[in-house]
Amino acid sequence: MVEGIDGSGKSTQAARIAEQLGAVPTFEMGATLLGAEVRKLVLGLDHAPSDLAEALLIAADRAQHVAEVIEPALAAGRHVVSDRFSASTLAYQGWGRGLALEDLLILVELATGGLRPDLTLLFDLDVALAAERRGKEVDRMEAQEVDFHERVRSGYLALADAEPDSWIRIDASRSLEEVSDRVDEVLVARGWR
Amino acid sequence: MVEGIDGSGKSTQAARIAEQLGAVPTFEMGATLLGAEVRKLVLGLDHAPSDLAEALLIAADRAQHVAEVIEPALAAGRHVVSDRFSASTLAYQGWGRGLALEDLLILVELATGGLRPDLTLLFDLDVALAAERRGKEVDRMEAQEVDFHERVRSGYLALADAEPDSWIRIDASRSLEEVSDRVDEVLVARGWR
Repeated sequence: MVEGIDGSGKSTQAARIAEQLGAVPTFEMGATLLGAEVRKLVLGLDHAPSDLAEALLIAADRAQHVAEVIEPALAAGRHVVSDRFSASTLAYQGWGRGLALEDLLILVELATGGLRPDLTLLFDLDVALAAERRGKEVDRMEAQEVDFHERVRSGYLALADAEPDSWIRIDASRSLEEVSDRVDEVLVARGWR
Repeated sequence: MVEGIDGSGKSTQAARIAEQLGAVPTFEMGATLLGAEVRKLVLGLDHAPSDLAEALLIAADRAQHVAEVIEPALAAGRHVVSDRFSASTLAYQGWGRGLALEDLLILVELATGGLRPDLTLLFDLDVALAAERRGKEVDRMEAQEVDFHERVRSGYLALADAEPDSWIRIDASRSLEEVSDRVDEVLVARGWR
């Protein structure tokens, strides 16, 4: 899985990785028809959900994503590369919003049926640089204040530190070519390329 | 709180009870602007959610309902009468859909922050009679087969049996007047009228 704050270039890399591995490329939120509707509710600027309702809506998107996209792909023997997955909930709704991590861990476990990624690549980037790269702020999450994105980033770094075997931090401040090379090294080191 | 299968007359009674007690009348799903959108996703016939996504969407509606309607009313010293609450999840998604009750109990606890009703009135009615009363089937839940509604009903009866101090079963097959009289007796016995 591929994680990071918006503007880190992770979506570009997720697409590259999926192509190189012949994996099914997917993403959160909104990879299913239902999820696309849920995404609008979470990111729209009308009637904003409470922090807890936000976490539950995202969990609903994830449950549908697992049921409709990820589980069928795995059952067919395919690999899956998702642009965001459970860790986004811990980083954004936990570190970012301040919801209790133990509650979110339970919620994530429930929504995924315990499904966990083999590897998560964290595209780590300075918050100000990420904001510059993504340009105009377009949704409710991107429009959060700098402190929020700083907390999310520190959450991701804490998650990566806590599980060094299944997380790899990639310096996303480098050029596209350098980042791509680093990603390729990781895939080769894992024996996936 | 007021519970029962659709067609049991519970909504009529919920409105009466709220008026008599001077309580804030409310309902699930859809009592908030966000919730009304979530309700469309759950009950709509397009892109139906998986059973788990359904439970999570309903939990999101409930979290928003608690945050926007119920908690503020309680904080202002008001009583609240809700047409459906957590027990609907146990009956519909647990007994009805077959999701694990232990997971749903955790989900309900999370969504409500542990908030529990003082009293739940179960308007219990034969499934065939309820279907007759509600007439044309209009949404995804009502359109479920008879067996589904039978399981939901048996779930409600099991919940009421398990907690006799906080649940009261009311025979909803009687006339409106008889049911209303029975409800009034319950409110008087509780010292609420």
